[in-house]
Amino acid sequence: MSFDSTIQAKAIDLTKLSYEMTAEAGSGHPTTAASLAHLISVLMYSHMRYEPANPSHPSSDRLVLSEGHAVPIVYAACADLGVMIGRSKEEWHPMTREDAMSLRELDSVVDGHPNPIEGFPFFDTATGSLGQGLSHAAGLALAARLDDLDKRIFCIIGDGESREGNIWEAIDFIKDEALTAVCPIFNCNVFAQSGKVSHQQSAEVLQAKLEAYGFKVLRIDGHNPAAIQEALSEHARNQHNPEADLVAIVAKTTKGWGSPSQQGMGHHGKPAEGDELAEALSELDAKAKEVGAAEDTKLKIGMMTGKKPDAEPRKQPMSFEAALKEFGLEKVLQKGQYATRRAYGVALRALGHADHRVVALDADVQNSTFAEMFADDEALANRFFRCRIAEQNMFAVAAGLSAGGKVPYCSTFAKFVVRGYDQIEMAINSGSDLKVVGSHAGVSLAADGPSQMSLPDVAWFGAFSQMTRPDGVPGCYVLQPSDAYSAYALTLLMADHPGPCYMRTLRPDTEFLYGPNDTFTLGGHEVLSEGRDLLIVASGYMVHEANKALDILDSQGVDATLVDLYSLPFDGEAIMDLANDNGGNILTLEDNYGHGIGAAVASVAAEDGSGFTVEQMFVRNLPKSARTPEAITDYVGLSPEHIAGRAMAMLELTAA
Amino acid sequence: MSFDSTIQAKAIDLTKLSYEMTAEAGSGHPTTAASLAHLISVLMYSHMRYEPANPSHPSSDRLVLSEGHAVPIVYAACADLGVMIGRSKEEWHPMTREDAMSLRELDSVVDGHPNPIEGFPFFDTATGSLGQGLSHAAGLALAARLDDLDKRIFCIIGDGESREGNIWEAIDFIKDEALTAVCPIFNCNVFAQSGKVSHQQSAEVLQAKLEAYGFKVLRIDGHNPAAIQEALSEHARNQHNPEADLVAIVAKTTKGWGSPSQQGMGHHGKPAEGDELAEALSELDAKAKEVGAAEDTKLKIGMMTGKKPDAEPRKQPMSFEAALKEFGLEKVLQKGQYATRRAYGVALRALGHADHRVVALDADVQNSTFAEMFADDEALANRFFRCRIAEQNMFAVAAGLSAGGKVPYCSTFAKFVVRGYDQIEMAINSGSDLKVVGSHAGVSLAADGPSQMSLPDVAWFGAFSQMTRPDGVPGCYVLQPSDAYSAYALTLLMADHPGPCYMRTLRPDTEFLYGPNDTFTLGGHEVLSEGRDLLIVASGYMVHEANKALDILDSQGVDATLVDLYSLPFDGEAIMDLANDNGGNILTLEDNYGHGIGAAVASVAAEDGSGFTVEQMFVRNLPKSARTPEAITDYVGLSPEHIAGRAMAMLELTAA
Repeated sequence: MSFDSTIQAKAIDLTKLSYEMTAEAGSGHPTTAASLAHLISVLMYSHMRYEPANPSHPSSDRLVLSEGHAVPIVYAACADLGVMIGRSKEEWHPMTREDAMSLRELDSVVDGHPNPIEGFPFFDTATGSLGQGLSHAAGLALAARLDDLDKRIFCIIGDGESREGNIWEAIDFIKDEALTAVCPIFNCNVFAQSGKVSHQQSAEVLQAKLEAYGFKVLRIDGHNPAAIQEALSEHARNQHNPEADLVAIVAKTTKGWGSPSQQGMGHHGKPAEGDELAEALSELDAKAKEVGAAEDTKLKIGMMTGKKPDAEPRKQPMSFEAALKEFGLEKVLQKGQYATRRAYGVALRALGHADHRVVALDADVQNSTFAEMFADDEALANRFFRCRIAEQNMFAVAAGLSAGGKVPYCSTFAKFVVRGYDQIEMAINSGSDLKVVGSHAGVSLAADGPSQMSLPDVAWFGAFSQMTRPDGVPGCYVLQPSDAYSAYALTLLMADHPGPCYMRTLRPDTEFLYGPNDTFTLGGHEVLSEGRDLLIVASGYMVHEANKALDILDSQGVDATLVDLYSLPFDGEAIMDLANDNGGNILTLEDNYGHGIGAAVASVAAEDGSGFTVEQMFVRNLPKSARTPEAITDYVGLSPEHIAGRAMAMLELTAA
Repeated sequence: MSFDSTIQAKAIDLTKLSYEMTAEAGSGHPTTAASLAHLISVLMYSHMRYEPANPSHPSSDRLVLSEGHAVPIVYAACADLGVMIGRSKEEWHPMTREDAMSLRELDSVVDGHPNPIEGFPFFDTATGSLGQGLSHAAGLALAARLDDLDKRIFCIIGDGESREGNIWEAIDFIKDEALTAVCPIFNCNVFAQSGKVSHQQSAEVLQAKLEAYGFKVLRIDGHNPAAIQEALSEHARNQHNPEADLVAIVAKTTKGWGSPSQQGMGHHGKPAEGDELAEALSELDAKAKEVGAAEDTKLKIGMMTGKKPDAEPRKQPMSFEAALKEFGLEKVLQKGQYATRRAYGVALRALGHADHRVVALDADVQNSTFAEMFADDEALANRFFRCRIAEQNMFAVAAGLSAGGKVPYCSTFAKFVVRGYDQIEMAINSGSDLKVVGSHAGVSLAADGPSQMSLPDVAWFGAFSQMTRPDGVPGCYVLQPSDAYSAYALTLLMADHPGPCYMRTLRPDTEFLYGPNDTFTLGGHEVLSEGRDLLIVASGYMVHEANKALDILDSQGVDATLVDLYSLPFDGEAIMDLANDNGGNILTLEDNYGHGIGAAVASVAAEDGSGFTVEQMFVRNLPKSARTPEAITDYVGLSPEHIAGRAMAMLELTAA
């Protein structure tokens, strides 16, 4: 009984500390924590192979706490084990009980939910928005497989949480990829926040579902140390057996285990305080006697291999023209036009050869986004992951891949990127180095209609372009290349930048605006035409519409400046200097809804206060299908004629 | 064989027209359409109970084409049957073959994907972004149940599409609610866009999954008319049998059925043109002979009941104070403060009693959003739907409820609303009358940390506030009440407005700023304090921070105007008039990332061109946990001291 009694003792100690720290914080989820007391004790004190002194070592087994609100139990274990924490080298230290009691304090790294970027590297990803952790685990497992690291990824998922579709997208993906390194553990404690979980999320139905998805399910008592250890061991035995089924664990647990006064409804996310706390703690002491808790054996944490992935040197990727030649596409150069989505495909392939960190993920549109150029290259195919029609899982897997040291490029239609916005935000919050490429952006895809058009995307990613993470990295760069040269260059540049980027590519072919000697930067822009009457600021497809409008304006004697503002954020001062040279008149053009590029330019102009006038043209009515880009840009009021007309009106001129 | 031969003839005719219309359009998905030829023929010519002349009659059976790209086959049937279409009364006419051939034209209502708002009322909702239709169907079924309408909702889901987690959230929900009126039909045609579907989406595994979820599965040959009819009939027999299992149909089909030259890979979303088209059509003619196609019996479309829901009159809801008294909460009035999320709960309950159309949906946080006030009222409980932890399904069910004539209020944490942005956008595109209420908005929830904070939400919904639907309704109002009176009033106002609204409510109690005589409007704002030096524009929680800043500024001799800008869009001219009265100086405050309120105000100011100066304060660094709202607002630079300091700097004053 010594393993049992020792785990019982640990479980009870950790539970008590969970109650104490949440009482101190005045918020948190001690009863959920209690339901995991034994699972966490077996994992962190015995089964997992890691070093508390080196919690993010690449060869260590990982724990993804998908039900992030249960985190006090992990904090308790980390405090007991002295797992290293700290925001900076100076603050780096073994976690203490005092740290645990600082839970949710502003100046504490012990955040309300798993939040590695604040200085808690035991966790790889931020969780707390439910249903994403299993995909993170899958990404970590893929990275380990690529790096030939023998490690396992344990993922704890709440029963209520398993209602999230993302969980089942992840289960399908783990099955497709045969990711035996992932150990999904469902914590069935029956009580969700506002009531009992549905029968659909009961241990019995979860087991049936997992079996239907192709898993072998071990249903255990989640408070029985021996049963937990045996189930984890069975998972371990299966890991390297190609004949074996994937294994998932369904653990029946009690929310508020050990403290009857904290069980049942009404205790979710409510710390016990005062007398209630005292009662819960004394019940746990009584429980300790009842179960014979005693630290009568020394537990030994599993030993990690200590192996690190090979650090292959990065090379300078080929130039666009060299890549076209290399890939047998040199005819493109004569054509003088090429879709930015195609240039992305060429760049992704070239980049894949130059940078071993780069991996690519797709959601069944690789032949539309042209990520297929990467997929179809035999030398790269093992770094290409088909996520099928399941965008949430794709972006959350990418967060896991990034945590595993990879640089994931995820591409799908820009419209379908929205499906994973929550996953993308959690990736940004996790410190991920995520590249998102949305194709068929804006309205120029025309025929398929609004169900395939990305319209509020610049607003959403734009919001991240205005914030900074604790690691000093901007929340996101928003990149809108207008031609193949810039699309190629920006695809490469994203890999050099250690943070999130969102690039919009276009369906139609667009004319070359740049050549081999043009250079681009994140945060940059390009002056395509210099005038003196009006500054036109455009992005992506609208640069071409603006170019046509320039001809009309020229015929009317109007001499406009055209800027290709291919990046958010951008150099506001430089844009205002250009505005100054153009009578203070700015016209912005974008093929999406408002709160985007125009609002960003207006924000800079209005902050300047020098009396610039900024008029914004964007999509102001719900688009529909049209057979040509010209027809739809006309419908939404963004044709060259509309642009020229608006410019004339701004200058109070009438057409000659 | 007459039913068989007639359906075969219809299936082949419709398939041919699908090829022809997509060839004419130059894009579209004829091979997917062909895989549904027999299913659509049996449904629309025989099984479904509806009237082509009255395609949106509330008692008619409905078809939700979740795999929206298959739509040409439905268009073909509608053209053959003369289903009524048209954007306006003047254009209202039976669909013709000529209409079908206008597929994807700008001036055609025959859009690239199902798009009812353009004038195609046979469909209830816009689909085309995959995985949402089954939730729409569930919403339609709930509405029918509430209205005691005997109808069925057929929903066709692609096999590749069934990878989307939303589908499984819907399946769980349909099971929970025992929605026997919904008939899910999985179209297993094996080929997705970029390859074969995963084994996880094969007919066999889909069957196993559905059985694990608690469905009886009928696996049929989707090109066998009798088998289709029998499966649909079995579903019908089960509809009113409380003992029976829920039934789902898994149909094995052939992508490009009838045209071997169009089968296999490489034919997704690519119309056959020229010789290829001729070959496909001639293969179909040969197939007609092979299967004995002949219109040798008259098919009769099922007859709908013609019943309409009772139109209960709407009453004027109670006032806030009357509601508090009615619900035993009168003590709130003495306290002088109350969280806006609580006021929302009170309003939702009062509204439920006054307006029978109002229904409420929750995602397991009803006791945090206070939607529980509606749920716990016995008279309203049947209009409250627990969607559990599955936000995508919640919002898409709401789109179905709206199409069924209800006014759905969906509430969850504002942070978790993002999980359903795609579903919300498709609802907006569908013409839905959707109300989204996100609680714990911004940073003031503090302790739980960034995984629970909504930060780019104002940017995203703000983008919709700048566009208009074809029905003339704004894409979305963004409402940010700062106190309980305004939260109550705005909750009621949303029901009077026939379109999408997003309201942010707050976790902490906030002081009353208004009283019983104050009135509010969508698009409105309120001047809370009149000064002359500086205009401060704030929303929600920041109004209270601004109020505290006013005291500091007052002590420094600065006389600021404070506007509670509780709505986007807003009256820009009125705000600029106020700016004029305040030296042209505007300072905006919001507790979210940029591209929000500040950008909207800056856009108006910059368009005006009168030299206003707009400085924006918003969240510029990733927040973390803190134990109090004060600590976190200070951390993100939005404390009253920060505000006052920025105001002084704007005015080039130094603190006395």
